Amino acid sequence: MIAPEYLRHVDASPARAARERYRAGAVEPTSGVAPGFTQANMIVLPRDWAFDFLLYAQRNPKACPVLDVSDPGSHATVLAPGADLRTDIPLYRVWRDGRLAEETPDATAAWAEHPDLVSFLIGCSFTFETPMIEAGIEIRHITDGSNVPMYLTDQPCRPAGRLKGNMVVSMRPIPASRVADAATISGRFPAVHGAPVHVGAPELIGIRDLSKPDFGDPVRIEPGEVPVFWACGVTPQAAVMASGVPFAITHAPGHMFITDIPDSAYHA
Amino acid sequence: MIAPEYLRHVDASPARAARERYRAGAVEPTSGVAPGFTQANMIVLPRDWAFDFLLYAQRNPKACPVLDVSDPGSHATVLAPGADLRTDIPLYRVWRDGRLAEETPDATAAWAEHPDLVSFLIGCSFTFETPMIEAGIEIRHITDGSNVPMYLTDQPCRPAGRLKGNMVVSMRPIPASRVADAATISGRFPAVHGAPVHVGAPELIGIRDLSKPDFGDPVRIEPGEVPVFWACGVTPQAAVMASGVPFAITHAPGHMFITDIPDSAYHA
Repeated sequence: MIAPEYLRHVDASPARAARERYRAGAVEPTSGVAPGFTQANMIVLPRDWAFDFLLYAQRNPKACPVLDVSDPGSHATVLAPGADLRTDIPLYRVWRDGRLAEETPDATAAWAEHPDLVSFLIGCSFTFETPMIEAGIEIRHITDGSNVPMYLTDQPCRPAGRLKGNMVVSMRPIPASRVADAATISGRFPAVHGAPVHVGAPELIGIRDLSKPDFGDPVRIEPGEVPVFWACGVTPQAAVMASGVPFAITHAPGHMFITDIPDSAYHA
Repeated sequence: MIAPEYLRHVDASPARAARERYRAGAVEPTSGVAPGFTQANMIVLPRDWAFDFLLYAQRNPKACPVLDVSDPGSHATVLAPGADLRTDIPLYRVWRDGRLAEETPDATAAWAEHPDLVSFLIGCSFTFETPMIEAGIEIRHITDGSNVPMYLTDQPCRPAGRLKGNMVVSMRPIPASRVADAATISGRFPAVHGAPVHVGAPELIGIRDLSKPDFGDPVRIEPGEVPVFWACGVTPQAAVMASGVPFAITHAPGHMFITDIPDSAYHA
């Protein structure tokens, strides 16, 4: 958990500027936006489901590392003072009875349906992309200006209360000679998914075709590159689907909440 | 979160033997018992308070690093298959309306009062004492065969729902030349409180007299030694008191639950 003092000496204007653009209606994947500022997945649930989800996150910390939890009914977060969680993400998803009901750039109306919503902000692997780029490791989806590819695996999460589901992973093609570096660098950031959960052999975790991600965009895999898989903060959305959760609001995959917290704050 | 596969190849008979002695009625502080096996603090709350507490832990992870959460009504844990959380801790505390009502070596009767109790097991700094001893750092309370001294500070935790309270710390006197090593070694174990929260200057965190700990026993401080303070898993008991929690069962300070999990599993 990041203490407020992290914010005191940080010029977070690039993060704020991005949130203001999204609040005004801009829609784009956020990989590479406001580099150096931690991005977060979001899931918002009625208070009645909040314990089940917090426990699900606690039992599956690689996929669901919790960065902040709002008080019931609040749409604020200590990770970005002044931000409004209802509007400051570029694209939201509204879920009803476990099904995607709507995608919208403004969740204010959906948010008003429940008086006691609890918001969970969850670490995002975009956070360790900056140190990987600084170490000379190309991040293909940033190079190509696309969204990161994400896949629903056949690997079950540990259930909690009424919640169950399989893990979602993000994939980055990494040159074979840099896989160890990518594991080491990302491993220094356990709060944002940490080290990979799987390297190569996508079929062993139930991924049949890398060119057909379940979320995001496919990316080029060049000769000599290995697909490397990290636990992904879309895992809660898989749980919403698998568990038939009556009501939830989430970010749209790849369209994250940009916090005021510098990536270095999550360096273990 | 430790996966069950950790348990498959570990001979946990020393941990099991200690639990069996406590189940049979033995009462002792557990520092130094079954060395190499992770020890845990415990707090048990009715389901109605479980979300507040899990959120309190999430917001105060240095003091309350959660290792496992039981399902409501269960007294089992994945950290020690076959263990019974009602009997396998040497000494329990039963709390009513924020006050200590009873100390008992067997919590079975208190446990039966509520059908939906949720048990939280929380990391304990005893876990990093073994690697500190291996690095040649004396742990005074182990040398002297006493309980670790613990102090209620004036440092507030971040509140959550109905829960609030100040942080409790444990203290170990460390030679000035080894303070950095102690910080480094303990810092490798973030799931069991990690690096110290304070070094020297006890008055700055509201500790008036080191010879009068709020929990546990005082220890000798030799010339050239500095008092080093780690966040402590008795912090939930301070929250029970400060918040007037109607019902809770905890371990007695220093009398921990000994798990089957090797300390190395929590090495970051």
